[in-house]
Amino acid sequence: MAKVNQHYAKLAAGYLFPEIGRRVAAYQEANPSAELIRLGIGDVVLPLPEAVREAMHKAIDEMGTEEGFRGYGPEQGYAFLREAIVRHDFAPRDVDISADEIFVSDGSKCDSGNIQEIFADDAKLAIPDPVYPVYVDTNVMAGRTGDADDSGRYGGILYLDGNEANGFCPAPPSEPADIVYLCFPNNPTGSVATTEQLAAWVEWAKANGSVLLFDAAYEAYITDPDIPHSIYEIPGAREVAIEFRSFSKSAGFTGTRCAYIVVPHELSGRGPDGPVSIHSLWSRRHSTKFNGTSYPIQRGAEAAYGEAGHAEIRERVDYYMVNAGIIRDGLDAAGVKTFGGVNAPYVWAKTPEGLGSWEFFDRLLKEANVVGTPGSGFGACGEGYFRLSAFGKREQVEEAVERIRTRM
Amino acid sequence: MAKVNQHYAKLAAGYLFPEIGRRVAAYQEANPSAELIRLGIGDVVLPLPEAVREAMHKAIDEMGTEEGFRGYGPEQGYAFLREAIVRHDFAPRDVDISADEIFVSDGSKCDSGNIQEIFADDAKLAIPDPVYPVYVDTNVMAGRTGDADDSGRYGGILYLDGNEANGFCPAPPSEPADIVYLCFPNNPTGSVATTEQLAAWVEWAKANGSVLLFDAAYEAYITDPDIPHSIYEIPGAREVAIEFRSFSKSAGFTGTRCAYIVVPHELSGRGPDGPVSIHSLWSRRHSTKFNGTSYPIQRGAEAAYGEAGHAEIRERVDYYMVNAGIIRDGLDAAGVKTFGGVNAPYVWAKTPEGLGSWEFFDRLLKEANVVGTPGSGFGACGEGYFRLSAFGKREQVEEAVERIRTRM
Repeated sequence: MAKVNQHYAKLAAGYLFPEIGRRVAAYQEANPSAELIRLGIGDVVLPLPEAVREAMHKAIDEMGTEEGFRGYGPEQGYAFLREAIVRHDFAPRDVDISADEIFVSDGSKCDSGNIQEIFADDAKLAIPDPVYPVYVDTNVMAGRTGDADDSGRYGGILYLDGNEANGFCPAPPSEPADIVYLCFPNNPTGSVATTEQLAAWVEWAKANGSVLLFDAAYEAYITDPDIPHSIYEIPGAREVAIEFRSFSKSAGFTGTRCAYIVVPHELSGRGPDGPVSIHSLWSRRHSTKFNGTSYPIQRGAEAAYGEAGHAEIRERVDYYMVNAGIIRDGLDAAGVKTFGGVNAPYVWAKTPEGLGSWEFFDRLLKEANVVGTPGSGFGACGEGYFRLSAFGKREQVEEAVERIRTRM
Repeated sequence: MAKVNQHYAKLAAGYLFPEIGRRVAAYQEANPSAELIRLGIGDVVLPLPEAVREAMHKAIDEMGTEEGFRGYGPEQGYAFLREAIVRHDFAPRDVDISADEIFVSDGSKCDSGNIQEIFADDAKLAIPDPVYPVYVDTNVMAGRTGDADDSGRYGGILYLDGNEANGFCPAPPSEPADIVYLCFPNNPTGSVATTEQLAAWVEWAKANGSVLLFDAAYEAYITDPDIPHSIYEIPGAREVAIEFRSFSKSAGFTGTRCAYIVVPHELSGRGPDGPVSIHSLWSRRHSTKFNGTSYPIQRGAEAAYGEAGHAEIRERVDYYMVNAGIIRDGLDAAGVKTFGGVNAPYVWAKTPEGLGSWEFFDRLLKEANVVGTPGSGFGACGEGYFRLSAFGKREQVEEAVERIRTRM
């Protein structure tokens, strides 16, 4: 039989969200009349903005004409979108990024899963805990770790503990690492990093020759004007950081699929014969294993930056952030300690009565018919915590909070 | 500096199509008045079918409503599309494939590039020559090969020579391999494999414990009723083969992006602790590093199977196949020996006067202002050959053939 990738066998458990799906499906089957409220997966619920839909309709009509038809596009994304990104996401914040440093893709999950491929098999990883599981799992699958221990931690990874003491924003470690995953506003804890905290990371990365993989998928949710939206707001970050951005949570693209990453030209890595441009490595990876994002969807993403599209997005972000406030207040009133939910669409809650995360998941499902996400699914440091997502319809969020208050 | 993937340094040259792009751009810049005809990249030119566009419009309208909005879809693809695939691509040919063996993606380039990730680092590869470069390059990038020699061949790969003697359809080798890439109808040579030839491959794979990666992206172009469209038409293939299909060349999706792969449940590989289901490995890979294909696009792909969509696709395929005939006849008349172009949209031509492939590329560009693809870009066995694509507007194909006849 063909020899398969043996590293997949190390994966401690099914990917978190399918596991939640299985438990929810089993409960629903056993209790067909239960009206579940899903605040588990961070999935938007409001309609796709009108400006986005109009642009996609127009692009599809173009595709129906001899002159307007588009076949293979540039793997990196169309210039119209890359230039709109620079103009709207970076220039207004005085961040110097050029359009050819942008790589458009079909999603941040793909980007954050694929990026590790351009690093060495034995590159040393530093990964926060709790964390978005894709960062860890894709490295396990690539063979960059040892086996998992009883807490689900893999050998060879330098874990950066996030806890109440550091506000779920770990400081740079004392030992070096080749690549570090950072996500702010944070999934799952909703924490943010200040300019000073990010500056410490950039300084550490420079001193240690590290690359920071900075996931800013939730930057649209920042409400505090002093919190950086991009790692490149920190001087020197162009030499040490790759940034991930997504249209999923801002423009409601979770089912439409568009994202991008920024790879500055200054970024170098250590190759077999000396320094190598990380931009050229990623460019090679992207053009060999990807064939560009769908044209109508790139037009939809471009429209998200127009005046109308921007206004619709602000409306949606504000709506979800009101939800976040309702969840925080409701849990506070129920005596549950919460974090996040101010600059991020996630509320991170301490499970009551010392319950384990999955125990609380099962109890919440059974007693309140509310689906959340167990903190332990994001890492050992998430044990004893729980994530609730603000991505829900208002009445459902209110009902969920009411059920938690009265039934738990 | 962070240690990067050292295997990228082995890549012999830029990916073929960007290199063509660079030479064409340089020529066009130096000769701005030259009217180039592009028969290089295999990219469709006819408008997206009306049935597909209508379905996409409808899906986008749904996404604008509270009830119809869709966020994250199933990573594997929506059941409506997977079931349509089974009903239309397999059931009519008496091929037994179930919907849960289908994995929908955003393109065959991604699928054929990603599939190697589930095999062992030291899995033995057999790859035809000439071949679609993505099969080779993605394995080089993953470290599954040695360095390239002067002909561009990588150490550690078992190359299967395609030549005039074997009709560009190599027989199974005498030594074993873990994974074998096969593509029929073939890109770049336009050759096809008969039932007997595919049966020999299936038998060999069973005897040697190999997995066949069967790329059927061009099956819609088969005109001979005796040629199999799917590897699963061969008894026993469910135990040894993965099949790749695409909407790109049939429904004109090169810029719209949708494809799928079939992974039968019977397929097993050798894991560290015994046999492992290849379906579960791929399922894990797909759900961890991919987040589903855009919903409106899956609806468009579904519509390609409707009565109207099917008729529009047949019309397009027939149009391109008339082009293929014009190219074949024109080259024959010009004294150039050709292959393919009967069951495939590619005509494979022997370069005249013993010219090298790139020499002929440059001469064709300069003398006839026609862009083709040098055979050597597909492997050492492609040297001395040239690929012309039938994906062009009729008048351009006719003009290209006329120029080749009169100017070369």
